[in-house]
Amino acid sequence: MRQVYIAGVGSTRFGRHPASSLVDLAVDAIEDAIKDARIDRDVVGALYFGNFVGGQLTGQEILAGLTADEAGLPCIPCTKVEGACASGGIAFRHAWLAVASRSCDIAIAVGSEKMSHASTSQVTEALNCAMDIERDGASGLSFPGIFGLIYRMYESSYGDIRRKLSSVVVKNKRNGLTNPLAQMGASISVEEVEDSPMVADPLRLFDCCPISDGAAATVLTSRDHVVGRIHRGTKDSPVEVVAAVQTRGVPFIAGHSDMCSFSATVEATQRVYDSTGIGPKDLDFVELHDCFSITEVLDSEDIGLVPRGEGAHWAAEGRTAVHGDIPINPSGGLLAKGHPVGATGLGQIYEAVQQLRGNHSNQVKDAEIGLTHNLGGTGVACTVSLLRRADA
Amino acid sequence: MRQVYIAGVGSTRFGRHPASSLVDLAVDAIEDAIKDARIDRDVVGALYFGNFVGGQLTGQEILAGLTADEAGLPCIPCTKVEGACASGGIAFRHAWLAVASRSCDIAIAVGSEKMSHASTSQVTEALNCAMDIERDGASGLSFPGIFGLIYRMYESSYGDIRRKLSSVVVKNKRNGLTNPLAQMGASISVEEVEDSPMVADPLRLFDCCPISDGAAATVLTSRDHVVGRIHRGTKDSPVEVVAAVQTRGVPFIAGHSDMCSFSATVEATQRVYDSTGIGPKDLDFVELHDCFSITEVLDSEDIGLVPRGEGAHWAAEGRTAVHGDIPINPSGGLLAKGHPVGATGLGQIYEAVQQLRGNHSNQVKDAEIGLTHNLGGTGVACTVSLLRRADA
Repeated sequence: MRQVYIAGVGSTRFGRHPASSLVDLAVDAIEDAIKDARIDRDVVGALYFGNFVGGQLTGQEILAGLTADEAGLPCIPCTKVEGACASGGIAFRHAWLAVASRSCDIAIAVGSEKMSHASTSQVTEALNCAMDIERDGASGLSFPGIFGLIYRMYESSYGDIRRKLSSVVVKNKRNGLTNPLAQMGASISVEEVEDSPMVADPLRLFDCCPISDGAAATVLTSRDHVVGRIHRGTKDSPVEVVAAVQTRGVPFIAGHSDMCSFSATVEATQRVYDSTGIGPKDLDFVELHDCFSITEVLDSEDIGLVPRGEGAHWAAEGRTAVHGDIPINPSGGLLAKGHPVGATGLGQIYEAVQQLRGNHSNQVKDAEIGLTHNLGGTGVACTVSLLRRADA
Repeated sequence: MRQVYIAGVGSTRFGRHPASSLVDLAVDAIEDAIKDARIDRDVVGALYFGNFVGGQLTGQEILAGLTADEAGLPCIPCTKVEGACASGGIAFRHAWLAVASRSCDIAIAVGSEKMSHASTSQVTEALNCAMDIERDGASGLSFPGIFGLIYRMYESSYGDIRRKLSSVVVKNKRNGLTNPLAQMGASISVEEVEDSPMVADPLRLFDCCPISDGAAATVLTSRDHVVGRIHRGTKDSPVEVVAAVQTRGVPFIAGHSDMCSFSATVEATQRVYDSTGIGPKDLDFVELHDCFSITEVLDSEDIGLVPRGEGAHWAAEGRTAVHGDIPINPSGGLLAKGHPVGATGLGQIYEAVQQLRGNHSNQVKDAEIGLTHNLGGTGVACTVSLLRRADA
């Protein structure tokens, strides 16, 4: 496998885009990424499209081919990939694999989702396809319910963290406020989180990510294509993909030996650390999958950023803030930036690249190495990517 | 890219499986393929799952992870891929790529679909997601209507072939009759085809593939894993994947410069021929995407098996029969074997492997090289695979 670089990234704002289709959003993100990468579109060799609920909420599949046609890409392999909320990360990993394996020299990963036009019940029904419907669907649980139960399991092991959990929300909302791509940044207090409407006890409205439209894209190339741009210290410098790992975990609740940890995250992260020699202490920031506030706590522990049981404490102490010990979700994360499902994993890559270029509106000082983490279902699919400044 | 071999294949019968879920069917096919390949399941390094309408017709996504869990596969990358009716072929091509690129040593591609429980209108609505819904969906056409129009375009270029087109159906139905996996084999006459109910003028019921459930799987490995089994002339001998190409074409009707040809097929086939030096005259048989009788005619011309305008004539003259000049769809094809959409491309691989092993119930004499062709939407996605007996 050869070294792979991110030559360019693009993204729409995450939020509501009533006038744009799923494909329109994807094309916008691709146009941005192609411009950023300074490549001609006719040299692109593969397109991977991350999407989860397009068929059900928009009646449109064949998204990869449609988007390639609309974006003027050549007659290349165009593939939609799906792994629930990890679909975007899976698209990134496959575009990386295409270049790393020399299957092609330049590949694009795009993720796009369109959800805000649908009713909440339609969205809930569509998202429930990420459960094992025979085993967990029959319970009547939706995802907020599942993560509410996970909170209760966590509480039984580590004690009441409800108040400190609100600090996770406060942090991410504040980060989102200064991220121009974010849907729901806000300056709110712990009290306001705890006064927001109950969704699935003990998770309240602000503990849950919003329903979002949006798209993000990444252009991946070999070193040859970017070598002239490395060391220039410009605002569009390339970023090295040090590792891109995809794992699978347990698809149903009762299959987990410990609901306070996702084995797919633990395994993916361990493979990244083992294969690169880079460990959690070497990371300058992490963009992780905080679909709910409690998920950020679990993820931060699974990734090894924080000792078990201390995720919420670290957030409450400011240790995961932009200028803390280990900045987590400086973008605002899913909670504040939004969660257009198939786009989320690529939105994380976009944010990480801006950090490593020194461009971010919530810039982490001297950021050289960042990690992104995208999770699907009840932990059935996970991708973890490790990115480094090309001149680091 | 290293050489890749098919070490094992598995398949359910195509048809109605009311007692089995989409995942059950996939697991059955994988179990068969693993047994056939004589591998341990813990050495599998990647799973690709071809599926198109599982989310809409069964409410279940995350099919790759769920199936891997159910089949006892390890913590490997598990990815659902989608390209409408070409989803199975895309799964095969990605499993091939995983092994060819040394990303892993053993990969499984499985395709599964479950459709027969749904109403015809639900199935039609789900399949329509393979159209560009903004441009073609608004016309009110369904796929039989689109291919009826394609027939009319073909007729305007090449003359009335209605009667000879029925010979395509008669051939495939007859082949299906002796294929134990086929859903709708039959011994019927040209007159019976033409007396069957009208679906979309001039296409009648027997011109259209049925609605099917089913799954098929393939185990792909490097040469190291099969070398001891080559030259043994046994009924489970490995098969070489000489080429596996994926292309994209035009996603909407008005975008085609010629509706009597799919550019994605022409391009994919040409790349296979150019990269291997093997041409259409070297093929011993072809399994191609005959979702409608007229599609077999177009495909056979696009692949270069038959001169333009002569596809139906060749069928009527018996030249595409099992013992004809170029056997087309000795399995019965989609028209008779069935079309569980996401499984179809892998069902074609299954059939081709049985031919190359000399096991097929409709055996082509001395078959050494076979080609499979899987098409999605109105030609938006295509895969073409070239397979050869490992001892040829």
